Amino acid sequence: VGEFELLARVRERLPQAGRRTVLGSGDDAAVTVPGGATATSVDALIDGVHFRRAWSELGQIGHKALAVALSDLAAMGAEAGEAYVVLGVPEDLDEDGCLELLDGMTALAARTGTTLAGGDVTRAPVLTLAMTVAGHAPSADDFVTRAGARPGDALVVTGELGGAAAGLRLLEDGAGPRAPSRFESLSGQDLYGERLCLARQLEPTPRIEEGRALAAAGATAMIDLSDGLGGDAGHVAGASGVGLRIDAVSLPLQDGVGEVAEVAGDDPFELATTGGEDYELLAALPPERLDEAKSAVEATGTQLTRIGEIVAGEGVEIRLPGGGILRAAGFDQLG
Amino acid sequence: VGEFELLARVRERLPQAGRRTVLGSGDDAAVTVPGGATATSVDALIDGVHFRRAWSELGQIGHKALAVALSDLAAMGAEAGEAYVVLGVPEDLDEDGCLELLDGMTALAARTGTTLAGGDVTRAPVLTLAMTVAGHAPSADDFVTRAGARPGDALVVTGELGGAAAGLRLLEDGAGPRAPSRFESLSGQDLYGERLCLARQLEPTPRIEEGRALAAAGATAMIDLSDGLGGDAGHVAGASGVGLRIDAVSLPLQDGVGEVAEVAGDDPFELATTGGEDYELLAALPPERLDEAKSAVEATGTQLTRIGEIVAGEGVEIRLPGGGILRAAGFDQLG
Repeated sequence: VGEFELLARVRERLPQAGRRTVLGSGDDAAVTVPGGATATSVDALIDGVHFRRAWSELGQIGHKALAVALSDLAAMGAEAGEAYVVLGVPEDLDEDGCLELLDGMTALAARTGTTLAGGDVTRAPVLTLAMTVAGHAPSADDFVTRAGARPGDALVVTGELGGAAAGLRLLEDGAGPRAPSRFESLSGQDLYGERLCLARQLEPTPRIEEGRALAAAGATAMIDLSDGLGGDAGHVAGASGVGLRIDAVSLPLQDGVGEVAEVAGDDPFELATTGGEDYELLAALPPERLDEAKSAVEATGTQLTRIGEIVAGEGVEIRLPGGGILRAAGFDQLG
Repeated sequence: VGEFELLARVRERLPQAGRRTVLGSGDDAAVTVPGGATATSVDALIDGVHFRRAWSELGQIGHKALAVALSDLAAMGAEAGEAYVVLGVPEDLDEDGCLELLDGMTALAARTGTTLAGGDVTRAPVLTLAMTVAGHAPSADDFVTRAGARPGDALVVTGELGGAAAGLRLLEDGAGPRAPSRFESLSGQDLYGERLCLARQLEPTPRIEEGRALAAAGATAMIDLSDGLGGDAGHVAGASGVGLRIDAVSLPLQDGVGEVAEVAGDDPFELATTGGEDYELLAALPPERLDEAKSAVEATGTQLTRIGEIVAGEGVEIRLPGGGILRAAGFDQLG
C-alpha cells in the first residue's frame, strides 16, 4: 500500500468536515475549535481478537470500529465530533480493500455527523484498527459518567439485548455474509430474526441520539453495553457506590435471540446478560423523569425499557425467570 | 494480561492530570475542557515495522511512541495537552513488561506536561502502540501549518541531524542496549557520539518548547523531520506552493554521524537529508525575525541553524558539498 496515494484517495471520499474542524487530514495535526467540553475515547479492533475477516465484509469492519468507539461517546451523552483512525494494513489487503473498509467507516461517520479528521496508515502483521473519537457538550457537567446513580433511581436500557451474542453463535456455526447459515431449521420470521442478530454483531449502531436524549432527561449514570449487561452494570455499581437490581424477565430480547438460543442450546437470558457487544445504553434515571426519557428516546426510533432499579448497597443482582438470582460484583475500581 | 488489573496499576503510576482534564481514565471517555483551539495527531508504532523489541528497552519503546506523536504537536507550535494510548500486548509480554513500557511513556509525559488521559489495552499478535495526542493554543491561527511559507523566508532547523539514521546503522550492525557495538574502531569522543546517535534513534526528543518558540517568533510554516529532511521539505514546498533551497554544508550534523558514516561507508549528508526520525523541526521564518527565533529557541537549550531559503517555484533543491544538486519533488498534495 502506498500510504500517500491511499490517503489522497481516502481524502477525496471524505464527507465535508464538521463546523468544529478548522483543518482536516494532511498537515502534522488536525485543528479543531471544540468549545465547551470534550469527551475522548479510544478503542482498538484487531483481527483474530475482536473480529474475523472471514466473518465480515471489509465495510462492516470499518463500520464496527467507528461504531464501537462512538458508543463510548453515546454513553457520555455527547454529541459526536471527530474521529481519528490508525489503520494497520496486512500484506494480503490491497488498496481497494482499504477503501472498502474506510467506505464503511465514512458512511457511519456521515450518518452520525462525525468528521474523520485524521489518521495514520501503516503496515501491520494483521488488520489492525485503532480509533480515537472526540465528542462534545456545552460544559463538562453535561456529560453523564458512570458515577452518579442514586438509590431509588430507575434502571433503563435502550433497544434490544442478546442479538450480538446470538449473531456470534451464528457466525461460529458458519453463518455470515459469505456463507449460508447452517441453522437450516430457521425460516420465515426466524430467518429475519437471524439476520437481525448477524447485523447486531457485524454492524452495531452507536446510540448517539439516544444517549443525548437520556442525558437531557436527567440520567444520573450511563454506560454502553460492550462487555455484557452483568459486567457493565457492575461498573456502574462500583463507580456510583450503589447496588443494581435487574429483573431478567423485563429484559428486551432482540428478535431472533430466542430461536438462535434454542437451536444453539443456550439460555436466551444468558445471551442477553453476559453476551456483550449489543452497544445499547444502560442508564439510571430519577423515576419521576422516566416518562420524559421514554418519550425522548422513542422519538429517535429506539425503545426504552425499565429493567430494574438502583438500591443502597453494592454489586449487581439479576433475578432470573426461574426464581434464581445471579450476582455480579461491582468492579469499577478496577476497570 | 488482565486488562482491569493492568489499568489499575497504570493509573496508580500516572502523574497528576493537567488543568484541562476534568475526568481521566476509568469512565467511558475522558473529559477535558480544552478552551481555544486543539491540534490532534495520531501515530502507530508496530513491532517489526517501526521498531524492534530486540533493539530497545521496553521503556524506550513507550518513550518513543509518545515522543513521535508529540513531535507532530511540536510542529504545529502547540502546547502539549493530553495523550491516549492503545496498547496491543503480545503473548510474550507480561504485566511487568507492560508497566516498564508505560513507565517510559509516563516519564516523558511528566517532562512535557502531557496528561495520559485514557487508553485501551488489548491482545495483539505483536507489540502494537497507537497514540493520539491533543495539543492546545489560544486560537487556531496560533498553530503553524505546512502551508504558509513565502518566497524570501529563511529556512531553519532545530538541533542536529543524521543521528537517528546513524543510530539505526549501529543497531543494524549489532549495537544496542543489550549488545555491545561491533564498531570497535570507535573509542573516546567517537564512542560518545555513537551513544548520542543510538539515543537519537531509540529515545527521540519532541521539540515542544522549540516549536512554541518558533510559532511565537512568526514561523510561517513548520514540519517535524520524521521521514527525512528531503521528503519533509517536499511536504512544505507542496503545501505552501513554493520552492525550498537547502545548502547541505550548513546542515548541523549530530556528533558521531561523521564517524558512523565513515565506518558504515555512508555519506554523512545522505544520513542527514534522507535518514529521517531525527524529529527536529524545519521551519520557514521571515528573515527579519531570525535573530528573535534563534534567541527564543536557544533559550530552551537547543540550537537553531539557518540551512536555506524559500524561493518562488516548486520542489526542493539540496546543494551538496561537492557541487552537485539533489532534487526532491513537492508532494504534499499526496501526503
